[in-house]
Amino acid sequence: MSGVTSINLVENALLVSIQDDVTDTEIVELQDTLSNRIAKENVKGVILDISSLEIVDTFVGRVIAQLAGISKLLAAETYVVGMRPAVAVTLVELGMYLPETRTALSLTHALTQLRRA
Amino acid sequence: MSGVTSINLVENALLVSIQDDVTDTEIVELQDTLSNRIAKENVKGVILDISSLEIVDTFVGRVIAQLAGISKLLAAETYVVGMRPAVAVTLVELGMYLPETRTALSLTHALTQLRRA
Repeated sequence: MSGVTSINLVENALLVSIQDDVTDTEIVELQDTLSNRIAKENVKGVILDISSLEIVDTFVGRVIAQLAGISKLLAAETYVVGMRPAVAVTLVELGMYLPETRTALSLTHALTQLRRA
Repeated sequence: MSGVTSINLVENALLVSIQDDVTDTEIVELQDTLSNRIAKENVKGVILDISSLEIVDTFVGRVIAQLAGISKLLAAETYVVGMRPAVAVTLVELGMYLPETRTALSLTHALTQLRRA
């Protein structure tokens, strides 16, 4: 299983790297682990790194939206970083505007914004 | 083909002029080009100049909404400038309130707001 998603604490945020070949089962696990860690570690934000995603479909779009929704309910702001241009175009064409998330071009930008928050 | 849309870098924003007779194919190309340039040139904003649009329909409204959605996902703020009063009336009548966009009466106003951001 190459595509294990990882969760790491960076400053006051949890950095989640989503792999290209993430499966349905892994996502359910990720949701559990992430929500528990947000509550336990009292983080201000969740940063979803999707730079390894080359193609998105509605499944991946829904995954991002759900993770953002969970984080918001647990009082953490979600930033999506590393989105490829083609991915942005596809998400919008699929009608997925990800209203709950903020985007930042890089991890540095996301951390800067979280420091200000 | 008279109505070629242009993209120019102005300060820290990309100025996109949308022509009246823009076609579906041109829009797809514009989405690709614009998204790649936002990511590459690390701009803070996208300014959609629609002053040459005399009439809008749902197609053009959707184009504006999609371009704004893509820009937002790539961490750039969208400003719509040069909207004619009749166009504003039509967009609202069509139920298109363009929630992802900010509007400014002129390019100068948009640039002033982007400098502050």
